[in-house]
Amino acid sequence: MGGAEEKIRDPAILRRFAERCGGPAARVAIIPTASMLPETGWTYQGIFRSLGVAAAHVLPLESRADCRAPEALAVLGDVDGVFLTGGNQLKLSTTLGGTPVAERLIAGNRGGMHVAGTSAGAAFLSEHMIAFGDEGATPRADSVRLAPGLGLTRLAIIDQHFRQRDRLGRLLTALAYNPHSIGIGLDEDTAAFVGPDDTLEVVGSGAITVIDPSDISYSSMDSAKRHDPVCVLDVRLHVLIAGARYDLRARRATPPPVDPAPDPAVGSAGV
Amino acid sequence: MGGAEEKIRDPAILRRFAERCGGPAARVAIIPTASMLPETGWTYQGIFRSLGVAAAHVLPLESRADCRAPEALAVLGDVDGVFLTGGNQLKLSTTLGGTPVAERLIAGNRGGMHVAGTSAGAAFLSEHMIAFGDEGATPRADSVRLAPGLGLTRLAIIDQHFRQRDRLGRLLTALAYNPHSIGIGLDEDTAAFVGPDDTLEVVGSGAITVIDPSDISYSSMDSAKRHDPVCVLDVRLHVLIAGARYDLRARRATPPPVDPAPDPAVGSAGV
Repeated sequence: MGGAEEKIRDPAILRRFAERCGGPAARVAIIPTASMLPETGWTYQGIFRSLGVAAAHVLPLESRADCRAPEALAVLGDVDGVFLTGGNQLKLSTTLGGTPVAERLIAGNRGGMHVAGTSAGAAFLSEHMIAFGDEGATPRADSVRLAPGLGLTRLAIIDQHFRQRDRLGRLLTALAYNPHSIGIGLDEDTAAFVGPDDTLEVVGSGAITVIDPSDISYSSMDSAKRHDPVCVLDVRLHVLIAGARYDLRARRATPPPVDPAPDPAVGSAGV
Repeated sequence: MGGAEEKIRDPAILRRFAERCGGPAARVAIIPTASMLPETGWTYQGIFRSLGVAAAHVLPLESRADCRAPEALAVLGDVDGVFLTGGNQLKLSTTLGGTPVAERLIAGNRGGMHVAGTSAGAAFLSEHMIAFGDEGATPRADSVRLAPGLGLTRLAIIDQHFRQRDRLGRLLTALAYNPHSIGIGLDEDTAAFVGPDDTLEVVGSGAITVIDPSDISYSSMDSAKRHDPVCVLDVRLHVLIAGARYDLRARRATPPPVDPAPDPAVGSAGV
């Protein structure tokens, strides 16, 4: 999720996550580690309870020692989904990285446990995480700093608040370093739901920008000085809206399905 | 290999690599992409021939198109080992990343093909690659820049010219971002031979510094400003010399074997 998701009036994304986890039977855990605000975990607990899930545990993992606690691991061994809040993704990676909690999230996800994150929580999920960077549309050699993320997938690098904070440049820079990953730029109040088939589906009010660098024919990344703009040729880019899909393995985008029952009176008038 | 390996008088590391690849029957390929010097590939070809291998192919992969050429893939499909020269690791990642040549190196290595690199070629091998950074012993928040590497292992982050260029600080920074990887700092003329059991053995005239961050109890990485020094507590560090081993999975170091036939006249005198 790209951050700043609608939580009160129409929490469509969080409802969809709860449904994926089992709806009324869903047991979820909330990890508010990224947040600086003590109430963040409890806010999400209230939302998930209002959506009717069976259980919503808050795991206040503040230290690396907390991430070894048997109690936390027991909770994570007994839930259908885990939700990572926003905040600072380096708080997540420095606290969870290399601990049994991180191992449990990776192993659980491989076994079918749903793992979701918003904002910093989303950035953290992939193998290569954008730790921080600069705004702007032009890739510059020093505009992004990568760090190892949780490691659920090597197929994609995730950025968030994408349009709102003008982050195309830094995502392009991250991809140009080594054009093996797909770039996923998440707008606010917008989510990518990725299934076991590595196909993502868009949910929410914004768009998802998918950047496929596999056909890059030239980049100046290896010769660019630190503040130079980077020349990158033959990038493929998709802007996906709700209902659209993207196959991360085949690298193929699918548009949203056509409305199954359009009003015949409207027809093609006004096109 | 940490770079600047002895090539002429006593090419012990390169000989060991050739032996691993099959000795007189060995067929190796040399990828000089990282180098700015046109003769680099041919220099190594001469060395490998003088070591008596059966074949030493130079693959001058200069562009991403070269990394899709059937001829190059055919060579890589028919060798026991691949050697990546030094130079600029971003030249390697931007040229090879996401291409069939990179896929072939990854798949080949999983199937038993030996893949070696010196200097930039070593830095490139792991999943998380140090692209560039600053010198100095103190970790600072902005002292290192990571990029996706070739991806042969997620277990380690590799740095080179380690003692010669005072790179402890930047490797500590890279590990503090997410303490899941082991840091391997390679001195010049020193190599880590990693087997299928993910145990490395040290060869060469220098040392290998192994940094195990898994017990880090605190770091200030997530709150440090860009130029701040980073506080990191409870790092484990090993300095390994020739013959010593390190198990990357168990995270256990083993000293060099005791000389099997010490001179009895020396005994423990002078200890």
